[in-house]
Formats: sequence, C-alpha cells, structure tokens
Amino acid sequence: MTTDIAIARSVALRPIARVADALGIPDDAVEPYGRFKAKIALDWLEAHGRREGAQRGRLVLVTAINPTPAGEGKTTTSVGLADALNLTGRKTVLALREPSLGPCFGTKGGATGGGRAQVAPMEDINLHFTGDFHAITAAHNLLAAMIDNHIHWGNALQIDVRRVVWRRVLDMNDRALRDIVQSIGGVANGYPRESGFDITVASEVMAILCLSENLADMERRLGDIVVAYTRDRSPITARDLKADGAMAVLLAEAIKPNLVQTLEGNPAFLHGGPFANIAHGCNSVIATRAARALGDYVVTEAGFGADLGAEKFFDIKCRQAGLSPDAVVIVATVRALKMNGGVAKADLGAEDVEAVRRGAVNLVRHIENIRQFGVPAVVAINHFHTDSEAEIAVVHEAASAHGARAILCRHWAEGGAGATKLADAVAELCDTHAANFAPLYGDELSLFDKIDTVARHIYRAEHAVAEPSVLAQLKRWEDAGYGHLPVCLAKTQYSFSSDPALLGAPTGHIVPVREVRLAAGAGFVVAICGEIMTMPGLPRVPAAEAIRLDADGLIEGLF
Amino acid sequence: MTTDIAIARSVALRPIARVADALGIPDDAVEPYGRFKAKIALDWLEAHGRREGAQRGRLVLVTAINPTPAGEGKTTTSVGLADALNLTGRKTVLALREPSLGPCFGTKGGATGGGRAQVAPMEDINLHFTGDFHAITAAHNLLAAMIDNHIHWGNALQIDVRRVVWRRVLDMNDRALRDIVQSIGGVANGYPRESGFDITVASEVMAILCLSENLADMERRLGDIVVAYTRDRSPITARDLKADGAMAVLLAEAIKPNLVQTLEGNPAFLHGGPFANIAHGCNSVIATRAARALGDYVVTEAGFGADLGAEKFFDIKCRQAGLSPDAVVIVATVRALKMNGGVAKADLGAEDVEAVRRGAVNLVRHIENIRQFGVPAVVAINHFHTDSEAEIAVVHEAASAHGARAILCRHWAEGGAGATKLADAVAELCDTHAANFAPLYGDELSLFDKIDTVARHIYRAEHAVAEPSVLAQLKRWEDAGYGHLPVCLAKTQYSFSSDPALLGAPTGHIVPVREVRLAAGAGFVVAICGEIMTMPGLPRVPAAEAIRLDADGLIEGLF
Repeated sequence: MTTDIAIARSVALRPIARVADALGIPDDAVEPYGRFKAKIALDWLEAHGRREGAQRGRLVLVTAINPTPAGEGKTTTSVGLADALNLTGRKTVLALREPSLGPCFGTKGGATGGGRAQVAPMEDINLHFTGDFHAITAAHNLLAAMIDNHIHWGNALQIDVRRVVWRRVLDMNDRALRDIVQSIGGVANGYPRESGFDITVASEVMAILCLSENLADMERRLGDIVVAYTRDRSPITARDLKADGAMAVLLAEAIKPNLVQTLEGNPAFLHGGPFANIAHGCNSVIATRAARALGDYVVTEAGFGADLGAEKFFDIKCRQAGLSPDAVVIVATVRALKMNGGVAKADLGAEDVEAVRRGAVNLVRHIENIRQFGVPAVVAINHFHTDSEAEIAVVHEAASAHGARAILCRHWAEGGAGATKLADAVAELCDTHAANFAPLYGDELSLFDKIDTVARHIYRAEHAVAEPSVLAQLKRWEDAGYGHLPVCLAKTQYSFSSDPALLGAPTGHIVPVREVRLAAGAGFVVAICGEIMTMPGLPRVPAAEAIRLDADGLIEGLF
Repeated sequence: MTTDIAIARSVALRPIARVADALGIPDDAVEPYGRFKAKIALDWLEAHGRREGAQRGRLVLVTAINPTPAGEGKTTTSVGLADALNLTGRKTVLALREPSLGPCFGTKGGATGGGRAQVAPMEDINLHFTGDFHAITAAHNLLAAMIDNHIHWGNALQIDVRRVVWRRVLDMNDRALRDIVQSIGGVANGYPRESGFDITVASEVMAILCLSENLADMERRLGDIVVAYTRDRSPITARDLKADGAMAVLLAEAIKPNLVQTLEGNPAFLHGGPFANIAHGCNSVIATRAARALGDYVVTEAGFGADLGAEKFFDIKCRQAGLSPDAVVIVATVRALKMNGGVAKADLGAEDVEAVRRGAVNLVRHIENIRQFGVPAVVAINHFHTDSEAEIAVVHEAASAHGARAILCRHWAEGGAGATKLADAVAELCDTHAANFAPLYGDELSLFDKIDTVARHIYRAEHAVAEPSVLAQLKRWEDAGYGHLPVCLAKTQYSFSSDPALLGAPTGHIVPVREVRLAAGAGFVVAICGEIMTMPGLPRVPAAEAIRLDADGLIEGLF
C-alpha cells in the first residue's frame, strides 16, 4: 500500500504565491514561509472582507460520529469535499486547524488528511509550520512568568499564591510536568507553590487567538484573562499585570492566517488548533472569515465527534462570531459504526451487517442533534476497502430513516473525483437556504443550566450534577459578570456519556461536573466532566524512536 | 535623539531575494521567511563551499573589553565594520548570533546593533525570527520527556533518577522554574524528582547546532549527549534513548543559516546564539563557513569580553571546526574604560583622563591575551559624543604602547562611512597574512590542567582550585574517553576574575571551580566558576509592561 507520505511526495505542489493569486490575493499581502506556506496580511483581508462581504461564502461544517480506534477520516473528508467542490466548478476554500507538534512524537501520525485527500506540505504542517503554536507557548508562559515575578517583587496586587490558576504550557507530551512544585531553591527563586504544565493546544491563549476578530480584539481578550484571585477571591487579570500588550506583540504574526494547498492545488487556511474538550476545538474565526470572503463555499471542521466539536462550533464559535452555518457533513465509517456496535478492532475485517445496524444508533443520534441547531446535515460514508455492500446499505437506510442522505465517498483513494456526489449534495443544501441556525441555549440562562442543557439535549443524560462548591463557584462568576458566557463541556470524546466505554447511544447516564474553569478572555466557562487529560504522556514506545532523517534528508517515521 | 527603531524604520530594506542574488545564491536555494528573512539551503551551500573553498574569505573576529553598564557596542561595531568593508570595495559578509527572545521582556533591548549600524528587520530578529530557538526548545524538551518516559515505563536502561543531568529549557526569563520538583501527583505522572529549567540559549542543543558541520554531524552530536548516569555511574546518552533522530528532525530547518541585511543592504547571516558562559558564545560554524564561501571578508563576533568570548571562539569553535582567524578587533569605549577606572555610571559624562588611563589596563590585557593565540589585533574606539580628545588620545597611547593600533570609529552615527579607517586597518592585517593562529592548549592536557591554563594565561589568576569531588568527576570523564575535549569556563563577564566587582586588570586571584558539566555532544567540558545564572529572572518592572502594538500595528517599547 502506498503511504500518505509517499502520495504527498509524488505530487508537485504549486508555489504558494500562485495559490494565493488564484484566490485574488495580491502579492504584497502574501508573506511566504518557504515555498509552500504563506501568511496573509490581516489588513488586506479586512479591507477585502469589507468590499466583498466577509459572510459571503456558504459555510459547511464537517463533523463526525464519536471517534473510535478504527478512525473516521474527518480531515480527509474535509479535504476531499473541498477538492470535489472545486472540481465541480464551485470556488471553495478550506479552513482547518493546525496540528499540534507534541503528539506527533507519541502515537498519532500527522493531522493533514490521508490518501489522495491531504493538505501539504505535511512535514512542515505537522512540525513547526509557521511557528504559531510556539508563539502561543511564548505568550502563555510570559504571562506565567509575570505572575510569579509580580509576587516575587512584593505582590502589590495581593495575589493569593494558593489561588494562581494560570499554569504553564509546552507543545510536548510530557507527563512529568503535569504536576510540579515550582520556585523552590531559596529566596531568589520566589515563593514555592504547586503548579504544572498543559499542552499548548489546551492554552486559553490558543482559544483566544482562534476566537478573536482582529488584533485589537485579541489584545482585549488577552487582557481579560483571569490568572489568579486575591484572598477575598477578587479576580486578577493579565491586564492588571500589564502583560496583555507584550502577549499581543508575541502573537502579532501568529494571528495572520496560514495559506497552504491540497494535493489537488486548492487553497486551504490552516490556522489555530484548540483542544475540543477544554476548549472549543475549531480553527480561527479569522481564517473562517478569510475563507468566506475569498470563496463561494467554505469547508471547515470541528474536533472529535459532533457531541463535542459541532456543539462547541455552534454554541461558542458561531455564537461569538455571529456565523451562520449552511450545512453539516457527518462523517462515518462502516468500521467505526461496527466498533460502536460492539466489534473489537481486530475483528473489523469481517462483514457484520448486524453490528453496523447496532452501531448506527450513534450516527442517528448525531443526525438528530445537528437538527436541533437548525442546520441541515448529510452523512459522508468514508469508504474503506473492506466495506461490504450490505453494510453500506445499512448506513444509507439508518440515515434516510432519520431524514438525512448518506453518500458513499472515495476521496481517500480518488481525491476530489471520489467525492463529487457529496459535493453536489452539500451544495444543494447550501443553495436552497435550508438552514435556520440558532445556538442550543440563550445567553441569559444560568451557567449551570447551560451545562445541564447540553448534558440533556446533546449527551442525552438524565441531567448534570455538581458538588455545592462547584455550584458556588459558578454563582460567584455570575455575580462577577461572567454569567452571560457560553459553556464548554470537557468530557471523553469516545462516548455521549462521561464514560468512554459506553459506545453507541447511551441514555440514563448522569453528567458529573468535577471542576469548572473560567476562560474570561476566550469567553467561555469550562465544565470538566470526568477525567480530562490536559497534558498527554508518551507511550511505552514513542513514535519519536523511529523518527529520523533518511540519507536524502527526508523525514521518515513521522507518518 | 533618534531611536534605533526609528532609524531602522526609516530605511527601505531590499527584498531578501535581491540580497541573496547579490551574493550569488540562486533563487532555488533561498527559502523566504516573509520579505526580509530567508534560510539558505544547506546542500547548495555545501556544493558551493566545495567549488569555491569554504575557507576562502578572511575571518575577522570582533570582541571587546570586559562589558560594563556603559555599553561597548560589539554588535554595532561588527555591523559598522562590515558595512565599511563593503563600502571600500571589499565583498564582506557578516556572521552573527541570533538574539534570545526571553530577555527582551526583562531589561535588555534588542541585540541587532544600534544607530546607523544595525541588522534588520530588528523586530523579527529580536522576537521569533525564523523559529530556530523554538525548534531548539522543542528538541531539548523532547529529549527530557523521553528520559522520564523511559523511566516511567520500566527503566530498562537502569537510569539512576538521582543522576538525571538533562534539565528542560524555555526561552523565557522565569526564575520560578529554576528549581522544581516534577512528576508529583501520583503513579500516572512518573517518579518524583528534583529538576529545573534553563533558558534556551543555555541548552547543549544550541551549542550543538552551532558547532555542527552539517545535518549528519548534528545528529551524531545529538546522540552523544549524556543525559543521565546509572547507579554505577555509566553514562546514558540520547542515542541510548533513541531520541537523536527525532531531535534532528525537529532541527532540520533550524540548522539552515538565516540571511538578513544591514541597514546599508549588506548581507548578514544570523544563526545560533549560545550563552558565552556555560557555552561557547558564537554563531554557527555553518554560518561562518557560508559567509567565508560567499565573501572575501567575514566579520563575526563572540560573546561578552575577550576573556570569555574570544577565548572560547579560539579554543572551542576554531579548534573544532579547523578555522584560522586572520584578525581580531577589540571594541572599547571611553566610557567603559572610565568605569573600569572606577567611575560610576552617573558620572561618565564628565571628562576624566586619568580614569581612562586607569581603566585602559583592561584593554591592554585583552590585547596581550589575543596575541597569545597568534592573531593580530586592532582596537576600535566606538565613539560617543561625550568623549574628549584627551580621553581618546589616552586610548590610542595605551594600545600602541602594546603593539596595537587604535582607531576611532563613528559607525553608530554615520554607518559604514564612519568606520572606513577601521576597515582599511583590518583588511591590511588580513591581507599581509600576519596571523599564525594556534589554540591556547593542546588536546592532550588533562581537563583540570586545561582549566588551570585558561585561568592563569587568560584570567591571570594564580591558579584554579577545585574540590576533590570535582577533580574526581573530571577523572571519571577522562577515563570514559572525554579527556581530549576542550574546556568551557563559566565565570562572570564583568571581571577577569570570578568576582564581578574586580574591574580593570586584577591579579593574584584564585579561580574556584564550583561544578563541572559534560557537554559530550557539543564537545566540551563546562567548568562553573562562581555563581552563574542559567535561567534569568524578570526585574521589578519588566520591559514587557511597556511593550505593545501601536495603532498602526507597530511594536513599541521593545527597544
């Protein structure tokens, strides 16, 4: 079998200036990073958006059933769909997340699609790319250093060292840094306290970069970050520490969207990549707007399954940015549905129509959920060579019984040509203006009621529960003026419930809110339900052990 | 007074492709990073070096007297000299260090020269530049994560957790991370132990990148890093952990030299920036070779004063890379000599000829020291408007009494035109082949004798001393095959001695070796003499508080 990297290397990419030119971006708005990556100047994008209408292009969200070890191919389908829309004469721009560097050295491969449906250059994108995540790491950690420095030099703001909530970040899977005691070693090193590191994609700075409208909005949001509390629980912000300006300076390049291309030479903005559990999990608002101002159709993506990713895309990103999506694609595979139907990964090769039928309840529930937001959905069956006709028929049947078309796609093997039927179906949904989008809940609901609403309507739980201390914390934030914020539930991506083993479409469960965190700059309140890891570890045999440069200087072992 | 940043912004830079073209670099070897920065492809540089002679251009080192708060202007003089050499018809290329990001938010401004003698674009260079330091941070911390991960999953290599010597790094001034306890919080987070962070420029990975001849040499050196010891004190290397390949992949872009330009449009490679105390303090060997293959003259720079920077340039970089420098410029200012003569910074404005005479002993000793390496030296008096003629005359007198010309330079105010006499003098030293370079000591000397040789011959101490435990450690490394390595003494930059208050030209002091560290990949043994800070802190009022973007999106407060 030809590997993704071999396919990618067999394609001659277009110079990025040509990709930009085809989009109508003038040369002086293109800042090249090597030959095949560029940042696009914000001032040109803003002026162009004013001229052409920043909400011009139809907005298509690609989401998926709950992820399984079998793989669903959400990014692959996003790329294939965009290539297919372009192939069928519809000017389409992708808006996707940038992958995180750290996990590449653990177990996962790249996050740039697969087969003939990839964005490129995959080595660059999966590693340092244009340095955005490094800039976010630096801005985040500058704020952390300024907090401890402020305390060290006299603590004029009277920060309670027991109530510093701003941790540090690294873009690395490093379990040893999850919990640390810092500032030991004597007077010169400050006041000892417990602390720790998260991975960079979990940083609120990442979420802020992705939700900001422009530089000024980003600087304001950075200033709003609550980093600590005083002894009487008054919040201390990054603005109080005068860190917001320097953080914005560190992010001034990172906020410009990155332009790359698909293997078929179509334009793709890859920009930002927040976690889809403790953050909202989609690419930047700036990239989405840029894509809409430049294309007639925009294909974008949300993290994990639709219960986490699509819900947050709607309730956080679309709410904040005033975006109104036109259509949703729910990606499913026969293999993943089989796993939802109880089949072990080792047994996926054998036909099992009944297992597909059992697992299809997961797909059906996501179809129903999307409908709650008023956006029409289509199912993309991402074809795998072991899929039988009978198995595929079951998926068609389950989807159409719930009012959604299911379309078999072969973009992995064939590129855009393998997804033209999906492109036609998506374009039809968009062009008939079938959408009537509204978020799930209103701003005025209490924070806990918002959490409970998501738990009941999306996760189909009986209800959410929280300890009195958590409820009291939510109440204090409401009193402090944060009650209007949307909520961001962090739970396992593998199940509708907070138990990763409950596949399919569980009901009757309870959603326990273990902890809540305020992301005042990003503009949401995180509710942590179950064990959520914000700093991954490396596996017993990390992928890093096999990664190296070959004799020609090409990377091997990364994908 | 016009600020450095105002001067820099008043100059229209040439597109970097034009700068490269003027050097004879073909377009397909130029990888642009924005409009005014580029990385140059290694394979082209290597092929060009083979054709043209990688040792072609004359190599001029710019060093200085011991630094004082008055400032000496070493980078400014390097830039001014290169511009002056170009102005006088000599094809000249600069090879300088990249500045560190972290300290920009503390007290120091940029590190790109000053006045009319600057490299540009200064905002980019002083912040993320082309991402090299972020890549070094990532490679360093991947190795750290793989060490703790290996221990966590069973410790097959039997690493003694008390003897892990590889710390982590961040490019940030953050005293809270100097000493930490990591891996607390339970079984899933590994084995608790003490550890800490250094600033990225202190990383051995930085030193390795700067001393490597090419990718393969870098990967070999990365593998040689000693990260820990077993209970019976056998060294464990990065190669044992299979981390070397992935680290090289992370550094594959960073190892390519960065091309920028001076404000007069002349080419400058800025590449790498190791500390000049616990590392060797000069730009990469690759950049120096590239500059020599492309220019008739190369101006390069070493860190701190000549006692630290020049000694390490000669004894570590030139020794390892087989470089043979042709001339040395020792930068001095009247103000700094006055401080060496006992004048406080506040009183520097008043003429004080006797203070200059007293302080000139510092300059004289550096002249004598450079002569020990067989390289001819010239003194550059970096002019400041308060300098009196009588004061300047004293510097001329002191230098010529010790066989070196001193030349007054006005490149800060006038650019290259202000340093043409210096250019003529330097070119004459080069063209008459006056140099007969040799390192200070041979490879075969014992490690402690090497330390003692530097202490006596360069620092003019009575001798070096070390505890028996330190001597025993050196002996163990000699037994393990590391005895041939040069030594890298880390002491205060402010004095020839290890006491920062002893200015001028102290004698009779003792150099105490507090601790020794093996940098087996970089290829030297560090001897720490006195208190050396490898992770700076922020001051009471960090520069970061005033750094922000103005209404036009330009950075203010950084310089």
